[in-house]
Amino acid sequence: MTTTPQSDSASRSSPVHVHYLGPEGSFTHQAANDAVRALLPGEGGALLIAERSASAIMSAVESGDGWGVIAWESNVEGYVVPNLDAMIDARNIAAFARVGVPIAFDAFTRDGDSQQDPSAQREVSAHPHGLAQCSGYIEREGLRPVPAASNAAACRDVEPGQVALGPRICGSLYGLRTLDTEVQDYQGARTEFLVMAQRTQAAEFLHGQEGQSDGEFESIVAFIPLSTGPGVLADALDVLRDAGLNMTSFISRPIKGNDGTYSFIATIDAAPWQQRFREALKTMIAKGDWVKTLAVYPRRERPNPPVTAWMLPDGGVSSGFTAAEDDRAMTNEYVSKELLW
Amino acid sequence: MTTTPQSDSASRSSPVHVHYLGPEGSFTHQAANDAVRALLPGEGGALLIAERSASAIMSAVESGDGWGVIAWESNVEGYVVPNLDAMIDARNIAAFARVGVPIAFDAFTRDGDSQQDPSAQREVSAHPHGLAQCSGYIEREGLRPVPAASNAAACRDVEPGQVALGPRICGSLYGLRTLDTEVQDYQGARTEFLVMAQRTQAAEFLHGQEGQSDGEFESIVAFIPLSTGPGVLADALDVLRDAGLNMTSFISRPIKGNDGTYSFIATIDAAPWQQRFREALKTMIAKGDWVKTLAVYPRRERPNPPVTAWMLPDGGVSSGFTAAEDDRAMTNEYVSKELLW
Repeated sequence: MTTTPQSDSASRSSPVHVHYLGPEGSFTHQAANDAVRALLPGEGGALLIAERSASAIMSAVESGDGWGVIAWESNVEGYVVPNLDAMIDARNIAAFARVGVPIAFDAFTRDGDSQQDPSAQREVSAHPHGLAQCSGYIEREGLRPVPAASNAAACRDVEPGQVALGPRICGSLYGLRTLDTEVQDYQGARTEFLVMAQRTQAAEFLHGQEGQSDGEFESIVAFIPLSTGPGVLADALDVLRDAGLNMTSFISRPIKGNDGTYSFIATIDAAPWQQRFREALKTMIAKGDWVKTLAVYPRRERPNPPVTAWMLPDGGVSSGFTAAEDDRAMTNEYVSKELLW
Repeated sequence: MTTTPQSDSASRSSPVHVHYLGPEGSFTHQAANDAVRALLPGEGGALLIAERSASAIMSAVESGDGWGVIAWESNVEGYVVPNLDAMIDARNIAAFARVGVPIAFDAFTRDGDSQQDPSAQREVSAHPHGLAQCSGYIEREGLRPVPAASNAAACRDVEPGQVALGPRICGSLYGLRTLDTEVQDYQGARTEFLVMAQRTQAAEFLHGQEGQSDGEFESIVAFIPLSTGPGVLADALDVLRDAGLNMTSFISRPIKGNDGTYSFIATIDAAPWQQRFREALKTMIAKGDWVKTLAVYPRRERPNPPVTAWMLPDGGVSSGFTAAEDDRAMTNEYVSKELLW
């Protein structure tokens, strides 16, 4: 069975398997749907497969059985660190696309005879995180929260008279009636997902896109400096700066199972095959760093606002913003309170 | 009511309020207990108060009502990003102590007449994360998972014949019988918590410790560069390197509500009142960065192993490790697969 991603769909004898974290109706399912629509236009191009765990997804992809979709980063919760660790540790996996899904909840019910006492308080079911993210709605409607193993499971198992909260996709999947849309407390939450394949498949897919897109790519690179101590990270970042490379995200992580050691994960506005980035990677390797490219994908549209005084958090010390200088009397006492020195 | 942390317990007229994320029996409760034992030795020094949310804890502390304890970082899940954002945004809060709690689950039951059919499958209850973290035990024992709003709630509400999974502290709190200890799949998971107070209280507490401890401190600092673009972060880290400061953790975060902007959070092996660190902070502020110290606490014992080839993840490219050179044939094909260039 050919599951290699190929741009020529005539040569694909069977649909691409796309593994995602189930059950059906999860936000990852929604991301997998979006990825298939964007990357495999046309019909019958993909077979979506719900997996029980992220490690089952990684195993399927590593064995060459098509693509996998995993949550990567949320603008509220930050990186999904276990998935990040899994990408660093993967023997033969790279990501070649990135898709964002708004984290929005609809409220569903199932039509039918409710055997519930009509005077009783109605139950609302979702994953505890889902319940927490819709606390305003639950309170306004006077519902009694009942935790579920996942939002999708809550929707799948909802009974007449109950309410379930979950991604929009659950409505059609489970034949539910939509009571309300967008009932989450916080508008604007978003989770980004990576679409992965075996490394050579990912590279093939990307090189097929090189000409098509405007040539703008973003990459996620993991590196581990050989030496430790003050300045290790500064030295590594100097290489990226001197190459004129722009970083859009950066974190440190202990090397798995080795507290006190460090790996760094950087998201960079360039593709590794572009001259400046390629030279920077060579320099890092030459000075002894371990390097692995985890992902390359077409560059996302991102806002790039200048930092202005009104964006700054309360408190803190700054001499660079005129407004801040005006608003915040930088007395010695104030500075010493904010810096704890 | 005096809730100021003071080392002279005779001058404290009433116990220090310590706010933590409830319900009673949560891992944060365990951290709050440990913090009180370490920081307020002697009896009657603290009144622990369970709160419904992290924002309720922050409000209580900001209003001057004693201390707060929040989860900061897990070695499995990474930073607790919403709490990190809350610390950056807090108007008048700083942390002055850090405590680590092993994430271990015990299995509890309640003695009494079980009304359950003895041939029926026994239920096991915990937060979905708790159920996931004990999947091996649940499978071995043939239990049927039932999600709860929290591990502590599962323990509080456990009925005869059911099993609940939760922190050890739940056994004594809720009068439960311990069936098994340490039933989690992964040994070695650990969450670190910060103990916070109003900034001036935190500073008082720290300055009381300056003489006592060996003078070794660690600090968490947030900074926001005025300018954006390539090299902003490298420039900032050069200042820390040139001051000889060692960083043990580092991440970037968008400034809250402003996608495309960046704040950086660094954990540094020094106290801001120590000369080298103080000068570095001055330099950063002079060149226009916004800076706020989020936490200062006695330095933790940490392993500091050299990075050796066997620690490296599978794959990747490295010229610095002899073993890696031997084991991994650095053909052009291999390098290009690992770097995607």
